[in-house]
Amino acid sequence: MQKITLLEVSKLLLKNDNFHILTHRYPDGDTLGCAYALCFALRALGKKANVKISGKLPSKFSYLAKNYVEQDFSCDYVVSVDVAAMSLLGELEDEYKDRINLCLDHHGSNTMVADNIFVDASCAAACEIIYVLVKELGVKITKDIANALYTGISTDTGCFCYSNTTAQTHRIAADIMKNECDFAMINRINFETKSRAKLKMERMVYDTMEFYCSGKCAIIYTTLAMQNALNAGDDEMEGLASIPRQIEGVKMGITMREKEDGTYKVSVRTNDGIDACAFCKRFGGGGHVAASGCSIKGDMQTVKYLLIKAAEEVL
Amino acid sequence: MQKITLLEVSKLLLKNDNFHILTHRYPDGDTLGCAYALCFALRALGKKANVKISGKLPSKFSYLAKNYVEQDFSCDYVVSVDVAAMSLLGELEDEYKDRINLCLDHHGSNTMVADNIFVDASCAAACEIIYVLVKELGVKITKDIANALYTGISTDTGCFCYSNTTAQTHRIAADIMKNECDFAMINRINFETKSRAKLKMERMVYDTMEFYCSGKCAIIYTTLAMQNALNAGDDEMEGLASIPRQIEGVKMGITMREKEDGTYKVSVRTNDGIDACAFCKRFGGGGHVAASGCSIKGDMQTVKYLLIKAAEEVL
Repeated sequence: MQKITLLEVSKLLLKNDNFHILTHRYPDGDTLGCAYALCFALRALGKKANVKISGKLPSKFSYLAKNYVEQDFSCDYVVSVDVAAMSLLGELEDEYKDRINLCLDHHGSNTMVADNIFVDASCAAACEIIYVLVKELGVKITKDIANALYTGISTDTGCFCYSNTTAQTHRIAADIMKNECDFAMINRINFETKSRAKLKMERMVYDTMEFYCSGKCAIIYTTLAMQNALNAGDDEMEGLASIPRQIEGVKMGITMREKEDGTYKVSVRTNDGIDACAFCKRFGGGGHVAASGCSIKGDMQTVKYLLIKAAEEVL
Repeated sequence: MQKITLLEVSKLLLKNDNFHILTHRYPDGDTLGCAYALCFALRALGKKANVKISGKLPSKFSYLAKNYVEQDFSCDYVVSVDVAAMSLLGELEDEYKDRINLCLDHHGSNTMVADNIFVDASCAAACEIIYVLVKELGVKITKDIANALYTGISTDTGCFCYSNTTAQTHRIAADIMKNECDFAMINRINFETKSRAKLKMERMVYDTMEFYCSGKCAIIYTTLAMQNALNAGDDEMEGLASIPRQIEGVKMGITMREKEDGTYKVSVRTNDGIDACAFCKRFGGGGHVAASGCSIKGDMQTVKYLLIKAAEEVL
């Protein structure tokens, strides 16, 4: 296992021919944007490449695969994109865990095991790495590649809103937008569209909101019963994590989501430099300073109590 | 009255010394960003300049005026920024309507009367014009100027989300962000912060939502009674206009806000190229293709009926 430069990454990609590109479970815009952009770029170089997803492509991201057809070949080079830890491969873990040749990521907390690793935590989105790589590979940024890269960059920065955004993020966006990128459609899908079911879920979630630590911590939760009552799927559940941090005075917004396996998936969003990653590490999770997650086993009251107690120590 | 180039604009500004800069009523991030950025730039050139606002500076934008102190001088050159029509000057109209020397704007529908007019409707924000102007004037972009310009650009593009955003918008943002711009704070204030009162107002507004035209038109409204019940001011009312268009399938989102003077302030937001400006012109208003407004006199049911009838003709 060795750390390599982006130039070495591009040489490795040029030297190989039959790629599987792995995304992380509960795939988001960044991991999918990386995978499709890299896949289209490798195919443009005459190579075989497929995107591998744990579960299925979320319907809202179907535009990424509009011109994607699964190819038939025997894979001999495996690349993971935006995957910070082996367990985050989800269903793909068993098949691929011992044969990852290259890991491309932007999580400082990356713990992946792979022949070669490139992590640049200064990038707001892993798609920024893929953008530089595509340029390095000499591949023209087509509309499909532009849409994939834009998706990762805009979703991981909250559409250029979050503090992880840099001048480089905007420079890349400016360049991508010259390539007939459907940015307005992409942003509408990711930031401006709510199903009526999602609207109902949000209103239900608002009713669960509680404040702790003199208003500096806000907690919301969803239960399987709430999801069932609204027949809400992953699309309706997405984005709820950003709600509690938005309230004036809140420095740590916590969202608990009951899962089928008896755990709560916990999302933590922070303001003012409060370290969400360190907070989630206490519970075996991780992520970024302002946005992290973890899973905790237990019933709602117990999990909530654990989180509040930990929040009180931090805030 | 003549249309001039940006180079001629910069010459006019260099030739004069004592400026009042006028913003539009219900001042938003763009008109205020323009005014403070231009004011700081003119002062950097050794000139006298004050920002004139109808009403008072909304508290959320107080950071723009952190290093602004009103100067004492006799004004001999009046510039309006981001003001599309004389009536939009609000309280400033009477004092200034016959003496506007220069109008800088990005509304294609601009009807201002001024000695000199520069309108560039290709700019997502009027602050893009001011950015180019500041560069043309040879003024260094200080942190104050960067914060003002970023405020206008991010608020008028929904943080680079809306279809009016261009590659130029991102290039300017990339340049501004090199100047210690507090973009994360600015975005948090404008996009990520809700008071608990605002949260309550949103939930109340959701309850008023009705759908017409087979779900392609969504209407919400607020009444003075609702505002009073929550003791909601302008801060709580802001941003409500973006709610109805977000619902899946909605092409025209209409927000009606009851005002003290017996009118309803109507905000129209559209998707898929539906012309909100043409729609609002029917009622004496105007604005942009995807975001326009108008005022209609009458009680709630009458105003709503007029709007729905007009929407049915368009959709």
